[in-house]
Amino acid sequence: MIEPAVLKGFRDSLPCDEIPKRRLIRKLEDIFSLYGFSPIDTPALEYTSVLLGKGGGETDKQIFRFTDNGGREVAMRFDLTVPFARFTAGHANELSRPFKRYHINKVWRGENPQKGRYREFYQCDFDIVGVDNAYADWEILSTMAFCFRTIFEGDESAFRFHISHRGLFNSFLSHIGLSERSVDILRLVDKIRKIGRDEVHRQLAEIAADETKAGLILSFVSPVEGESFSHTLSRLTELAGGSCEASERLGEIYSLLCSEGIGELFTLDASITRGLDYYTGLVYETFLTGCPSIGSVCSGGRYNNLASLYTKENLPGVGSSIGLDRLLAALEDLKSPLLAQKQSADVLFVSEDKKASFAFESRIAGRLREKGIKCDIYPIQVKKMKSVYDYSDRNHIPMILIWNWKGEVSLKDTASQEVHSFGIADDEVITGEISDRIQRSSRIQA
Amino acid sequence: MIEPAVLKGFRDSLPCDEIPKRRLIRKLEDIFSLYGFSPIDTPALEYTSVLLGKGGGETDKQIFRFTDNGGREVAMRFDLTVPFARFTAGHANELSRPFKRYHINKVWRGENPQKGRYREFYQCDFDIVGVDNAYADWEILSTMAFCFRTIFEGDESAFRFHISHRGLFNSFLSHIGLSERSVDILRLVDKIRKIGRDEVHRQLAEIAADETKAGLILSFVSPVEGESFSHTLSRLTELAGGSCEASERLGEIYSLLCSEGIGELFTLDASITRGLDYYTGLVYETFLTGCPSIGSVCSGGRYNNLASLYTKENLPGVGSSIGLDRLLAALEDLKSPLLAQKQSADVLFVSEDKKASFAFESRIAGRLREKGIKCDIYPIQVKKMKSVYDYSDRNHIPMILIWNWKGEVSLKDTASQEVHSFGIADDEVITGEISDRIQRSSRIQA
Repeated sequence: MIEPAVLKGFRDSLPCDEIPKRRLIRKLEDIFSLYGFSPIDTPALEYTSVLLGKGGGETDKQIFRFTDNGGREVAMRFDLTVPFARFTAGHANELSRPFKRYHINKVWRGENPQKGRYREFYQCDFDIVGVDNAYADWEILSTMAFCFRTIFEGDESAFRFHISHRGLFNSFLSHIGLSERSVDILRLVDKIRKIGRDEVHRQLAEIAADETKAGLILSFVSPVEGESFSHTLSRLTELAGGSCEASERLGEIYSLLCSEGIGELFTLDASITRGLDYYTGLVYETFLTGCPSIGSVCSGGRYNNLASLYTKENLPGVGSSIGLDRLLAALEDLKSPLLAQKQSADVLFVSEDKKASFAFESRIAGRLREKGIKCDIYPIQVKKMKSVYDYSDRNHIPMILIWNWKGEVSLKDTASQEVHSFGIADDEVITGEISDRIQRSSRIQA
Repeated sequence: MIEPAVLKGFRDSLPCDEIPKRRLIRKLEDIFSLYGFSPIDTPALEYTSVLLGKGGGETDKQIFRFTDNGGREVAMRFDLTVPFARFTAGHANELSRPFKRYHINKVWRGENPQKGRYREFYQCDFDIVGVDNAYADWEILSTMAFCFRTIFEGDESAFRFHISHRGLFNSFLSHIGLSERSVDILRLVDKIRKIGRDEVHRQLAEIAADETKAGLILSFVSPVEGESFSHTLSRLTELAGGSCEASERLGEIYSLLCSEGIGELFTLDASITRGLDYYTGLVYETFLTGCPSIGSVCSGGRYNNLASLYTKENLPGVGSSIGLDRLLAALEDLKSPLLAQKQSADVLFVSEDKKASFAFESRIAGRLREKGIKCDIYPIQVKKMKSVYDYSDRNHIPMILIWNWKGEVSLKDTASQEVHSFGIADDEVITGEISDRIQRSSRIQA
């Protein structure tokens, strides 16, 4: 006998997790499509040299890599950004410019598993490449807003987008004579939520070698309670030495957000810098009001050259990545209705009649399925109802339709235990009666 | 510069392939849900010892396997059946009995790539485990019929299910005194579509060491033109020496299929044996009338012990696997309407107005998206329409909405070139007008 073990850091997805996960993924796919993003996919395995470029660094240690049977050095993808860069370069002649894609699939990292961190997880990326303007920036933010309003069923207090612009931060640093320390400072500020203001202050003073400048930076990145987006923008612009390209871009983006009526969802927050050198303009993170400890669940920004490793074509872009597994964990904590429905079917058909041929069930189920009602037929003639209740419990099926040997049909709500019995009429009548009651119970899956 | 190459035997999925593929997968998911199957997922990587069992054989050479950074022997899954067996054993206490699951995801095999064969491909499996009766057998067949009727939009002449029962074949072999050669004979007969009747006859004569018996076997597995399912069943039952468990099971299954009104879709075809020793009862394959060369696109059968490698629990089951990539290739050949729609959006918004702020477009797009209409806004103010047409062509967008500097709106059908112009009224009116025309054009994605 072999122990049916899974690898450390990996996990199975059982129906109670997979059903809501698939529902969330489909909702996101629908939204991306409403905005005209196209789905793509890339191989799980690629040449190591293609994924790692000149290689080295942290990423290198974290990836699953090996030599295949043909002697090729191969690796499993560790994100969806590098494959996207390789993809746009490789299919330059087949893709439109601009190109808008989304990609939802698994990536693998050999990092040490911690709570909530796995070696296999989903990423959900969407990007617009080939254009650098406020409109494209806005469209990514607008798509994010649509996603989160959908996920939280319109409750706009459940999430908040914090946006900033690296260029504005750099103008400010240049204004106070610290532009050459920009990379270190942006990286440090990015950690403010993790290590706290005091520690950031202490380290800033070291980097800037100047207590006053450290204080200035800290005040630049500290939110002012109750200040509007426009006021924050004016204040930061002034601190940065006056209007610049970055401040104007932020103004344009905000005005588009307002004309769409979603300006209120956004905070201008200069502490958002995104650690990665990769980003060059707008940057953003998304926080859940009810789950601050989980950190950002959707982040991204503008970059000025996606595929420079693979092509001479200059490809500026803007994109966002939803941390699907983290978001799902948060929604679980928040008891989101999106995850509440885990049923494998709307109704379970059960026959108590030993001579039942399943012909009746299959006919009625066929009619109900045509109406979109999910019917599971218990595939064994039942002796004890206990096994049926165990089955409906484990599969979270809200209604049971029992056909007994007297030729009666009863529909039972497994939560309220309410039972409605009726005689067997013609198929049409019975189908109508059952579908009415199931739909009225408002427990069928949206 | 790094060459943006993909590995031999792997491929990217571009929007024109990924859009129809995702649509097909969602249709299948919906059907499995209507029947009460639950989705599951398992890791892409597993312990080599778990996937290969005692290992060895053909499979061994074909899998991607390596030693991970922690010194573990790991392998990428090469099918969804072995992980499912491991899954049911590992989660025995969490799953219902019976358990009905579907699993649609990628598997990897290092076999030599041939035409239409890749090293990374999708499998789509659905199974009922924990029950051995005609009803469960029927339900898998009924689900398959629902899938193919949906894929071919009700055209029942487009596909045909060939079913048989290994037990019936074995009764027959036992009747003619050849039961000890059963494995070899079933494997050989399984190749009849590949190597032809004559070659099978020649090899049968060798195995049976008896020309008459070889002839008998060949006649057992040869279809009789125009013969009904019931007649074939009677004839085969007689050849097998009279009624047995297998012939009775086939009769029960067929009667359930008839009571559902889909008996006509099934041929009783004793040449279907499925090469794998794994199967013990009902077996079946699915052929496409318009694409015979592609072979079976959906196959499976009944097995009597799924997870014997991992658990002492006896788990009989019945299941089916759709060859998604092969099916997609066939649908492409058959110019299926399911694959025809590749548009990234229903309508492309374009602004010719240099001073356009995108505010109008974003407002109208927001309203149309609420109605489920997919709106892509061309993110650059347009100088030449050529770039717009190139964009809508490459993304297969059927309608373009152009807003010009005079404040007029024109809606253009990119296929018919028909243009409808109207002045800008209030948002409500304009949204209604656009959505009517788009929906009437009947080119929006189903």
